[in-house]
Amino acid sequence: MSEIIGNLLVAQSGGPTCAINASIAGVVLEAGKHECIEEIYGGLNGIYGILNEDLSDLNEEKERAIKGLKYTPAAALGTCRYKIDFKKKPEKAAEEMDRLFEVFKAHDIRFFFYAGGNDSQDTSHKIHLEALKRGYDMRVIGIPKTIDNDLPKTDHCPGYGSVIKYNAVSTMEVGIDVGSMATDDGSCCIVEVMGRSAGWIAAGTVLAKRCEADAPHIILLPEVPFEEEAFLAKVKDTVNRYKYCVVVVGEGLKNKDGEELGADKNNLDAFGHPVLSGSAEALAKIVQGKLGTKTRTVKLGYAQRAASHFSSQTDVDEAFACGVAAVKAAVEGKSGFMVKIVRTGENPYTWTTDLHPLEEIANVEHFLPRDWITEDGFMPNEKFINYARPLIEGEVQPPMEGGLPKYVKLEAIRVEKKLPPRI
Amino acid sequence: MSEIIGNLLVAQSGGPTCAINASIAGVVLEAGKHECIEEIYGGLNGIYGILNEDLSDLNEEKERAIKGLKYTPAAALGTCRYKIDFKKKPEKAAEEMDRLFEVFKAHDIRFFFYAGGNDSQDTSHKIHLEALKRGYDMRVIGIPKTIDNDLPKTDHCPGYGSVIKYNAVSTMEVGIDVGSMATDDGSCCIVEVMGRSAGWIAAGTVLAKRCEADAPHIILLPEVPFEEEAFLAKVKDTVNRYKYCVVVVGEGLKNKDGEELGADKNNLDAFGHPVLSGSAEALAKIVQGKLGTKTRTVKLGYAQRAASHFSSQTDVDEAFACGVAAVKAAVEGKSGFMVKIVRTGENPYTWTTDLHPLEEIANVEHFLPRDWITEDGFMPNEKFINYARPLIEGEVQPPMEGGLPKYVKLEAIRVEKKLPPRI
Repeated sequence: MSEIIGNLLVAQSGGPTCAINASIAGVVLEAGKHECIEEIYGGLNGIYGILNEDLSDLNEEKERAIKGLKYTPAAALGTCRYKIDFKKKPEKAAEEMDRLFEVFKAHDIRFFFYAGGNDSQDTSHKIHLEALKRGYDMRVIGIPKTIDNDLPKTDHCPGYGSVIKYNAVSTMEVGIDVGSMATDDGSCCIVEVMGRSAGWIAAGTVLAKRCEADAPHIILLPEVPFEEEAFLAKVKDTVNRYKYCVVVVGEGLKNKDGEELGADKNNLDAFGHPVLSGSAEALAKIVQGKLGTKTRTVKLGYAQRAASHFSSQTDVDEAFACGVAAVKAAVEGKSGFMVKIVRTGENPYTWTTDLHPLEEIANVEHFLPRDWITEDGFMPNEKFINYARPLIEGEVQPPMEGGLPKYVKLEAIRVEKKLPPRI
Repeated sequence: MSEIIGNLLVAQSGGPTCAINASIAGVVLEAGKHECIEEIYGGLNGIYGILNEDLSDLNEEKERAIKGLKYTPAAALGTCRYKIDFKKKPEKAAEEMDRLFEVFKAHDIRFFFYAGGNDSQDTSHKIHLEALKRGYDMRVIGIPKTIDNDLPKTDHCPGYGSVIKYNAVSTMEVGIDVGSMATDDGSCCIVEVMGRSAGWIAAGTVLAKRCEADAPHIILLPEVPFEEEAFLAKVKDTVNRYKYCVVVVGEGLKNKDGEELGADKNNLDAFGHPVLSGSAEALAKIVQGKLGTKTRTVKLGYAQRAASHFSSQTDVDEAFACGVAAVKAAVEGKSGFMVKIVRTGENPYTWTTDLHPLEEIANVEHFLPRDWITEDGFMPNEKFINYARPLIEGEVQPPMEGGLPKYVKLEAIRVEKKLPPRI
């Protein structure tokens, strides 16, 4: 059991998912069971809000609302893409770290949980080290979250199962649609999905395929350098065979020179990553221009990571369990770890959670292994399918009102500020 | 009762929907009850396939498959965008009409049903007139189908309720996602939806709004000429107020000169309509360029009209009833009509089907009335909301297998050809 008594702070970071709120529900509901945890606070908009001392009192929320987080998409506490950048802006970063610990101390935060992807785990790791350095007794546990599924050491990431479930159903439905319109002149449809430089999300659409003729016919993974000629030959062959061709492309598809097809080099996000858009449009121009095949595009965009009307029950259950596990670990005195999901069995799929040191996770990206991809590079193989298949099992059924889901909105009652405003 | 005995032919045309197969199910299941109807054939890929004598025997399908059509998206018989063009190609059209009647006679088709939108109702009308002219006793009934909802005389079109249900949930989810990421620098997301020059589909996303602050904040309807300055002012005001702005835009948005923002004038479809794409991208460039607000796009494309994982039970029930009503009308001796949906009550919403002469429907487009739109032109008003709200009620629950819907695929057992191939 913990030797410290104090308050809990949980926050969310990076792109939202269908399951990240389930992790918050896990944290809050588990925290309520432990006497060493007094107040339960949420940091609004992640680190960005914590720096401004924008905290909400989660004990003031209705229990129904907390439970409703399990089927509510996006980040109920708000999220951010704000990075404490020790490399590029060391002075600002040091000042920000000071401020964070002022906030922690002012509110007696002794348990800190941050749900996010690579950058966020790095932030958690830095806060953990800083707490040690400052001799401030606080347990820091990272909670994995990313649709991109590119965190290392965990079997997969909460959020991933839901995004591929939705993208797979969308690809299946687009495929049936385009197939039903296909006549002798042939047609092509290109579906662009997220995932940045990792192909996990694009690969997941293979689950839509129940037989060889089914869409998707080609999956372009950022891990496999794009070769135009081979791609066009494959499209042509598919259209000859089935009269249509459905292509799924990851937004971060690159050519042999490492240049992204859909990258906008003049447009960088807060982490300095180029904003990716338009790989489908870029491909459509190639197909339409070179083959003369009628080509349409679909860009699911943010809709794919927020589609809680069709999210995976397995994913949401795991995300919730990660939140619970984080609190249990912290109460046991652990700090500087990320919760990970461990696969313990196949057929039936079983899993559990465990902990992994943050220092081995922060800023490491995990890509689709080459031997999980067919030799021609246009499709993930059975290894991937066996891995991904159980992750989309089960449908979350949000309550409905007027034909649409009734998602939860937290009241977000603010915790009184104790510090002077940040300059 | 009918005085003729013979075979039935049903076919689908134009862009598929979530509900068009339900109409086919209605036709087939109702046809089985009438002794005057002997064989039940499906025309594969609409008129295009019928010209090639590509017919399938729907009596050979399993009853489970026919019932499964109620929750299966796209056109199970295949569809086409093929038009018998009497205006531009009168000789070819006359030859095609001869061929059609050869096929009808060879297979003793006495009941012909064509499910489609404006162009398809025109085709049905022409076939009806031609049958009269030729003294060929055949009953022709059009079945309404279009996500665009732009057929006149019917309260709304089968397929419309499902597309706006899915687009509304997607807009709601995108809104929650973008809202949860919104920090002081503000952000914008533009969701492009279908509908060509009619704003019905775009308007339907207003149903995602449960309060003023909810997305969508702006809906750009093709019925309202786009004015850049007013639009940018509205985006700016929304971002100032809520830190983010979700815009829904119909693909056919036009400026004051009638030029479509997203039209590709060099790319025409088989009906001579310009291919529309990119109104969201066009707007994103304007917002990002003029306001400097971070802007992302979503283009739901074909996914929106095939999303049977979240289609409207009301829509599917109505589509099924339209198929049933078409058969009943034909058996009663009617020809040259389209089935229409008549709203008979509000709160609770009630409806029935009726018939309307095809000549008043063919090629007429029905647009969103100006007095159903707010004065500033950026949102449909209560009149529209009252109209659209009941159409998305109820969720179709397709059977699931491995976390994805198990849609039906017809066996499509071919009817033996009796004619020499078309030259």
